[in-house]
Amino acid sequence: MSILRKDPITGRWVILIEERRRSRRHFPHQYREHHEEKECPFCEGKEHLTPPEILAFRDKNTKPNTPGWRLRVVPDKSPILRVESELDSQGSGMYDTMNGLGAHEIVIENNIHNAAFDTMSVKMIKDIFLAYQQRITDLAKDIRLKYMLIIKNFGAGAGAVMPFHHPHSHLVAYPFIPHVPKAECDGAKIYWKYHNRCIYCDMVAQELNNPNERIIYSNEDFVMLAPFASRFPYEMWIIPLKHSHIFSADDTLFESLALTFKEFIIRMNAVLSIPPYNLVIHSAPLSDEFAEFYHWHIEIRPRINLAAGFEWGSGTYINAIFPETAAKELREVEIKSDDIY
Amino acid sequence: MSILRKDPITGRWVILIEERRRSRRHFPHQYREHHEEKECPFCEGKEHLTPPEILAFRDKNTKPNTPGWRLRVVPDKSPILRVESELDSQGSGMYDTMNGLGAHEIVIENNIHNAAFDTMSVKMIKDIFLAYQQRITDLAKDIRLKYMLIIKNFGAGAGAVMPFHHPHSHLVAYPFIPHVPKAECDGAKIYWKYHNRCIYCDMVAQELNNPNERIIYSNEDFVMLAPFASRFPYEMWIIPLKHSHIFSADDTLFESLALTFKEFIIRMNAVLSIPPYNLVIHSAPLSDEFAEFYHWHIEIRPRINLAAGFEWGSGTYINAIFPETAAKELREVEIKSDDIY
Repeated sequence: MSILRKDPITGRWVILIEERRRSRRHFPHQYREHHEEKECPFCEGKEHLTPPEILAFRDKNTKPNTPGWRLRVVPDKSPILRVESELDSQGSGMYDTMNGLGAHEIVIENNIHNAAFDTMSVKMIKDIFLAYQQRITDLAKDIRLKYMLIIKNFGAGAGAVMPFHHPHSHLVAYPFIPHVPKAECDGAKIYWKYHNRCIYCDMVAQELNNPNERIIYSNEDFVMLAPFASRFPYEMWIIPLKHSHIFSADDTLFESLALTFKEFIIRMNAVLSIPPYNLVIHSAPLSDEFAEFYHWHIEIRPRINLAAGFEWGSGTYINAIFPETAAKELREVEIKSDDIY
Repeated sequence: MSILRKDPITGRWVILIEERRRSRRHFPHQYREHHEEKECPFCEGKEHLTPPEILAFRDKNTKPNTPGWRLRVVPDKSPILRVESELDSQGSGMYDTMNGLGAHEIVIENNIHNAAFDTMSVKMIKDIFLAYQQRITDLAKDIRLKYMLIIKNFGAGAGAVMPFHHPHSHLVAYPFIPHVPKAECDGAKIYWKYHNRCIYCDMVAQELNNPNERIIYSNEDFVMLAPFASRFPYEMWIIPLKHSHIFSADDTLFESLALTFKEFIIRMNAVLSIPPYNLVIHSAPLSDEFAEFYHWHIEIRPRINLAAGFEWGSGTYINAIFPETAAKELREVEIKSDDIY
């Protein structure tokens, strides 16, 4: 079991996990060998190597936890948070502790071991987003869970752990609203109180007025841009044009998102030669109070630079690529219709 | 020249630097060769390879920018911020921009190219802290500078750039209070309003009551501990017992700090086999309003794990080493008096 501790000065929570759950990400210097694992637990026919599935898109007449699936969602074998009986909060002098209540699920995105987004069909990618939505909707019934985060770590350089090559992502449900989405919500709320408008909607409108500055790609449903105050080289955001605080869409909009996502992958891989990257979906906390001012979006951080004491000690990022330069390079990638469909 | 941009949602500043200042840290994938540079610009006799010195501890009868020094402070050749004529702030729609006003200096800590802290004398280490204080005091006269941060990146894995092996640290002066120290100040102020006591003083008192939990080392002047909500494996803080909001000390206290610092280096190197690390000195912003509730301290982060989307997307760190485990290992390193003196 993991436990949560709160820093008494900044109020920030930390998740402390048991040592048996140490992985390559936590101790890379102890894992120098990058050998491919012999048995990938995420491959078809190896369903017995994962905990029982929670959700699967599979052929009719196939049974759970057997072959015949296109996508599976399973609990993480070593979850950073897990559904416990009760949320237990304790104090010790000035310190606060909680038990590691929450959920941590793995979305096995495809049954093909080395599948890559640039060769996956739009339908396959759409299925991934549909799975996220179904799992979020289901977990939202547990009122102890306050925030759901979708995370994808691609490549060892982005902190991805074994099995590296089988496409998968994480869904983590927290018993509190984590620091970063909270800062976004707080900022968006202040703007809304002042202007009575959504800051993300305003930002998108301002950016679309200057489509040769920081816009990388846009269609009727989404815009992909390099944010004005990009923290990292080639940082990218994908923002839906239609205001919605919660990550949710109908079938048509998810198909459009899958298309946009494939655009992002092809452009990034062309400019940065298939870099490691982190991707997160920021959605509002599970409450209607955020409906008017928050706006869900996807943030992508190619992992090509190394943070140093400057960033960690100050919180002020140093970026050596202007977002306008990044957007221009990414915008000018030539994409043929064949690449997408 | 660099420019500062503010994220309109979270209010966080980012420093965008010109592309000619790209370094190994910003694009490690383009710099795969870790060869030792032929001419180290920080060595004695190579003073012409740095901008003119601002401060030096040198033998009597030697001239500035010539050999004969033990420690030199020079402006960074490619500063992330620099002293401009005027602070210029501009808006563009919802966006805010500032010019990169500030200062960025390099403290060349020793005239010996491969000097290491575990073999440097206590006097040599004390000189480094004295130099920090002198430069901070001098820069504080410029009222446009709001915050000074001391940063040390040790090893390529911690984002240190060429020359790797010549011991040096950075002093950055910002025209605003960066996000991380601001969060500490805000939290400490809230605690002080409620309790009328310094949160750091209270924390140190609580920790010293249980010296076998998270205390690594303590003497009459300083305590070194693994913080309760450690974000990283083997995170360490060095905190002065005497309350002071600003990094400042007399000769005796700096000697004691140098001793404590050498204790830290020897213990960390013994447990983690000379790891890369980041070190920052958190001092109050340059204003008396922080005097009662803020408390300067040193934070050290050995760089042995790799942050992934979990940390970046949520702000909630995952740590696979309990601080009590880290403290026990570091506390139990046997140190002989010969190792220190």
